[in-house]
Amino acid sequence: MQISVIGCGRWGSFLAWYLNGIGHQITLYGRESSRKFTELRKTGTNGLVTLDEKMNLTSDLGAALKSQILVISIGAQSFRSLMEQLSSRDLAGKTVVLCMKGLEAGTGKRLTQIFEEYRPDTPVAVWVGPGHVQDFTRGIPNCMVIDSRSMQVKKELVNAFSSDLIRFYYGDDLIGNEIGAASKNVIGIAAGMLDGLNKTALKGALMSRGTREIARLIRKMGGNEITAYGLAHLGDYEATVFSPYSHNRRFGEAFVRGEDYGELAEGVATTKAMLTLGRQYQAELPISDAVNRVINQGEEPNRVLSDLFLRSIKMEF
Amino acid sequence: MQISVIGCGRWGSFLAWYLNGIGHQITLYGRESSRKFTELRKTGTNGLVTLDEKMNLTSDLGAALKSQILVISIGAQSFRSLMEQLSSRDLAGKTVVLCMKGLEAGTGKRLTQIFEEYRPDTPVAVWVGPGHVQDFTRGIPNCMVIDSRSMQVKKELVNAFSSDLIRFYYGDDLIGNEIGAASKNVIGIAAGMLDGLNKTALKGALMSRGTREIARLIRKMGGNEITAYGLAHLGDYEATVFSPYSHNRRFGEAFVRGEDYGELAEGVATTKAMLTLGRQYQAELPISDAVNRVINQGEEPNRVLSDLFLRSIKMEF
Repeated sequence: MQISVIGCGRWGSFLAWYLNGIGHQITLYGRESSRKFTELRKTGTNGLVTLDEKMNLTSDLGAALKSQILVISIGAQSFRSLMEQLSSRDLAGKTVVLCMKGLEAGTGKRLTQIFEEYRPDTPVAVWVGPGHVQDFTRGIPNCMVIDSRSMQVKKELVNAFSSDLIRFYYGDDLIGNEIGAASKNVIGIAAGMLDGLNKTALKGALMSRGTREIARLIRKMGGNEITAYGLAHLGDYEATVFSPYSHNRRFGEAFVRGEDYGELAEGVATTKAMLTLGRQYQAELPISDAVNRVINQGEEPNRVLSDLFLRSIKMEF
Repeated sequence: MQISVIGCGRWGSFLAWYLNGIGHQITLYGRESSRKFTELRKTGTNGLVTLDEKMNLTSDLGAALKSQILVISIGAQSFRSLMEQLSSRDLAGKTVVLCMKGLEAGTGKRLTQIFEEYRPDTPVAVWVGPGHVQDFTRGIPNCMVIDSRSMQVKKELVNAFSSDLIRFYYGDDLIGNEIGAASKNVIGIAAGMLDGLNKTALKGALMSRGTREIARLIRKMGGNEITAYGLAHLGDYEATVFSPYSHNRRFGEAFVRGEDYGELAEGVATTKAMLTLGRQYQAELPISDAVNRVINQGEEPNRVLSDLFLRSIKMEF
């Protein structure tokens, strides 16, 4: 099939490489001004994947929009501005797949909600779940999830995207899968903080309480709480809570050690979105709240995290 | 309080050291014939903890049974034989705490069930959840769970055992906490197998599917499925699925690499018990089954584990 990947960052470039490798015709789109686009155009590689000659690398959005399937993988906070660009385009007959893990910081909105504000006419799906580019390119397989309101869209995409490297499961809870996929980055920051404070052993308790927190929120939002325990959230903890590659974990670790990390991890914006959702749905989110207090309010991390796990004796559930 | 710890292995010796350190009067019991008892009597240490002079190390079971609280920490497969010895003893006014993670291999019975077969007159509790001796002795805190049919017993024990090092939560599902605590060792073996096969990235999917498998079994047994996501099971994955200290994880890793591990991990017996429970409660247990096929039936691990995670496309739940 003709597939365009919108976004040529680490993950977008990988998606293009992967989909090309399983036989699709790929257009990879990046902004002319982006450093990563320039690097790819100049060298044909980003150090993780090397673009195949067959692939079409372009900064012409119109050219990218000709494919049947559009896979979008950009920073979640830039998604609305992309949708503004897509709002007036002809997308007839196309399917859009969002392969991103985030929420709009200011509003707490899920990305398919933003998509449907602009393009209620176009079928949209999400592609979430575990996996690091560094593992996939070494041939280490993983399981991921495709979710959409439409069973037909899910089937079409699972058939088109499956391989020995990535085995897809059908999701059945768009709210749960989007919230779960985004919020695992917040849990990842908390995990990094525990690592940085020499409290790695508490990552067990973090997993138990983190999944509960997200399950409760998903239920209050009208999703299925069990989705928090699926591939998109708990299933992504190996890659987030434990992996040396996880940006969010490393960001949390560097933060509590007072080291400069260079850039904000995606989970920082997601933390803001989570607090918005917590207020909106009256859900208690103690871990998201703790991450926010440490990162945005300058509270002392050791005290905040000790309070979170070790203060009061209570019933487990 | 006067507390006796029955069992002077790695975990029993730690419990004695910990309870002594928070101010209790401790008797530590081991069998005269045991290597660990001999080592402790000769050197006063097992390399992880050093016994305090105040502690009473004994091989006289009668002396150990004088304390108000008896904490039992022996191999789960030896528990019935200990209970036979305890069946005729005077335990009036005593509380028994089982700090062990296992099930009876032949019957699938939980340890409190075996306890109550012999001593229905004596209150019994379980002490489960994450934590490695190696972390605790370095001062790294963790959260654990006390569960019992009796709220009064739980309160008494949580008050007596709590400290800055171990924060206790009240459990409310003895079935779920016992099954969860024991079965995490089976998941730990599976995790080690993935590590040994260079499929570490699949530990995310393992966590997601492992918790589901145990949750389903707990529900079928009459417990609360959510307990699988609590400290006793998911909360113990950091220490089991990821830790370099985990015997079960290391056993699984060594097994698939064809290396000698010296002894069987506790999870091997638990795997047998799980299959018994699966038949008894008609619960599908694909991960326990896969571990059994590799360890006990000589099936090829790479094929068994690939089949488990990567074969068929299906709904996630």
